[in-house]
Amino acid sequence: MTSLEPMTRTADGLGTAELPPAIAPFDLKAYLKERQATVETALDRALPMAYPETVYDAMRYSLLAGGKRLRPILCLAACELVGGTQAQALPTACALEMIHTMSLIHDDLPSMDNDDYRRGKLTNHKVYGESVAILAGDGLLAYAFEYVATATEGVSADRVLRAIAILGKAVGAAGLVGGQVVDLASEGNPDTTLETLEYIHLHKTAALLEACVTTGATLGGASDRVVEQLGQYARAIGLAFQIIDDILDITSTTEVLGKSAGKDLDAQKATYPSLLGLEESRDRARQLIDQAKAQLEEFGDAAAPLSALADYIVARQH
Amino acid sequence: MTSLEPMTRTADGLGTAELPPAIAPFDLKAYLKERQATVETALDRALPMAYPETVYDAMRYSLLAGGKRLRPILCLAACELVGGTQAQALPTACALEMIHTMSLIHDDLPSMDNDDYRRGKLTNHKVYGESVAILAGDGLLAYAFEYVATATEGVSADRVLRAIAILGKAVGAAGLVGGQVVDLASEGNPDTTLETLEYIHLHKTAALLEACVTTGATLGGASDRVVEQLGQYARAIGLAFQIIDDILDITSTTEVLGKSAGKDLDAQKATYPSLLGLEESRDRARQLIDQAKAQLEEFGDAAAPLSALADYIVARQH
Repeated sequence: MTSLEPMTRTADGLGTAELPPAIAPFDLKAYLKERQATVETALDRALPMAYPETVYDAMRYSLLAGGKRLRPILCLAACELVGGTQAQALPTACALEMIHTMSLIHDDLPSMDNDDYRRGKLTNHKVYGESVAILAGDGLLAYAFEYVATATEGVSADRVLRAIAILGKAVGAAGLVGGQVVDLASEGNPDTTLETLEYIHLHKTAALLEACVTTGATLGGASDRVVEQLGQYARAIGLAFQIIDDILDITSTTEVLGKSAGKDLDAQKATYPSLLGLEESRDRARQLIDQAKAQLEEFGDAAAPLSALADYIVARQH
Repeated sequence: MTSLEPMTRTADGLGTAELPPAIAPFDLKAYLKERQATVETALDRALPMAYPETVYDAMRYSLLAGGKRLRPILCLAACELVGGTQAQALPTACALEMIHTMSLIHDDLPSMDNDDYRRGKLTNHKVYGESVAILAGDGLLAYAFEYVATATEGVSADRVLRAIAILGKAVGAAGLVGGQVVDLASEGNPDTTLETLEYIHLHKTAALLEACVTTGATLGGASDRVVEQLGQYARAIGLAFQIIDDILDITSTTEVLGKSAGKDLDAQKATYPSLLGLEESRDRARQLIDQAKAQLEEFGDAAAPLSALADYIVARQH
C-alpha cells in the first residue's frame, strides 16, 4: 500500500472498509439483497424434496446453506447487461450454484481438503457420511445440466446448448476439476511456482466465475466479442477473488470466515501471500479489479452492478 | 425352469449357451465386434490427454479399460432403428460410456462398495488414490454433457437438448445416484423388500440403459411414442440385466467376471436370488426379455440388433 492512500486497516487487511465513492450512486447492498432473495427462492423451487429423501436432503442441505450467491448473481447481471432478462438466465444461475455446491461438497471430503465446517455449518459428509456426500455432489452436477436443458425458456435451443458447453468445460478437467487436482498435488510442495498457483486459481475459481458471466451473456443474446470481453472481466475478478481468499485465510478468523481459517498455513499450501507477501498480493488484487472494470467501460452505467461486484470482491471480509 | 424346456445347464446358470435359433440369421458377434471397434476409437478420440495429466490419465484409465460397450452400442442401434445415422448418436454414445464409467469409479470407492478390481484391472482409486478417483469421476460426468453439446452434428439443437435432459435425469438423484443411495442403505438390511430391490435395479441399472435407447431414438428423429416404446424395451432389459448380474455373482467366479464374485453374499445384500431363489430369478429375467422383445415387433427385421442384444443379456457369462 502506498502512502498516497492512507486508509484504516480493516479485518480483511485491504483497508477498504467501504466501497469507493465513484460507485456510491449504485446501491450494491440493496441490489445484492434483492438478487439473493430471488436466487434463494429459485434454488428452493429448482430442487424439491423427493424419494430417496437421504440424497435430496443432502443435496438441499448444502445447496440451501446460504452463502453470497455471487455466481448466480453474476450470471443474472451479465444477461441483463447485454439486454436479456433475469428469467432467461435464472435456471442457469441456479445450475451454477449447484455446480459450485458440488465442488464444495467434494473438496471438503476427507480424501481431499478434509474440512469439517463450511459457511459456519458442518460439511456435508460430516452430516450425511462420505458415500452420500459423494453421491449428493454427483446428483447436483447431473441435475445442473438437466435443469438448464429443461427449465430454460425464451432462449433459442442453440444458445442453451452453448451455455451447457460452457458449464461442462468450466467444471471438468479443463476447469474446476483440473484446478483441484493441481491444488492437491501442490500441497506441502515448497517448490510450487507462481505460475502453478495462477493455474490453480484460474481453474479452481476463475473458470466458474467466467462461466457465470459468459453463460449469462450468451443466454441474453450477446455477440461472441461481448461474451469474450465479459469473460476477461470475470477471469480477472476470479483471480482477485482467490487472492483475497488467500489473504483472508491469514488475516481473518474462523468465526468471521464461517470456515476454518489458517488452513493454508497448516497444509503448507503455496498461496499468493506466501509467494509474494501480503502487500504485493493486495496490490495485485487491486490491479486485477482495475483490469476487470476496464472491460466494462463501453457499457457505461448499465455495467454498474458488475462494476460494484468487482469492488465488493476486494472489499469483502469473508 | 419348466420341464417343457430341457436345456444344458451352463456357467451362467440360465441354460442358454447359444442364442435362440429364431435370430440366427443376425450375426450378433460380428455386429458387436464392429460396433465395439467404432466405440473404442471414438472414446479414445473424444478424450485426448491434456494437462493436468494425472486426472486425464485417471479418466482415460477407466474409460478405455475395455468392457462390453453395451450402452453406446444400444444408443447407436436405437438411432439407426428409427432412421438416424451412427454419426448423429456417436457423441452421445460416448457420453453414456463416460457416465457409466463415472458411476463405476465412484461406486468402487472405499466409502461405497470398496472394490479393488473392475474388469480384471485395479479400480481407479487403487491406482490413482481416492481424491483423484473422485475428481476423475466428476471430470467424466461434466465432460459427458459438454461433449454432447459440442460434438453432436446433423441433429437439431432442440433434439440435442432433449438428449442432454435425458442423460441428466438418468444419472442424477432420480436415476443412478438415487439407486446407489438406496442400494447402500439396504446393505445388510434383512428386511429389504422386492419393491425396494426393484427400485434399486430400475434406477441403478435400467435408468441408464433406458437413456441409451431414448437418447439414440431422440437424436435419430423418433416420435415421442416411439421413444417411449423403446424406453420400455430398455427398462425391461435393464432389469433383466441386473437380475443376471445378481445370479452371476452367485454362480460365477471372480476370474470369469473380472470383478469380485460373491460380493453380494459377503455384504448381506438383498438380491433377486436371495429373495426369489435362483430358478424364479431366471424365469423373471426370461419374462422381461420377452416383454422387451414384444416392444420391437412393429419394427420387423430392422430391430434384429436390439432383439439380439436382449437375448445376449440373458445369455452372457460376465
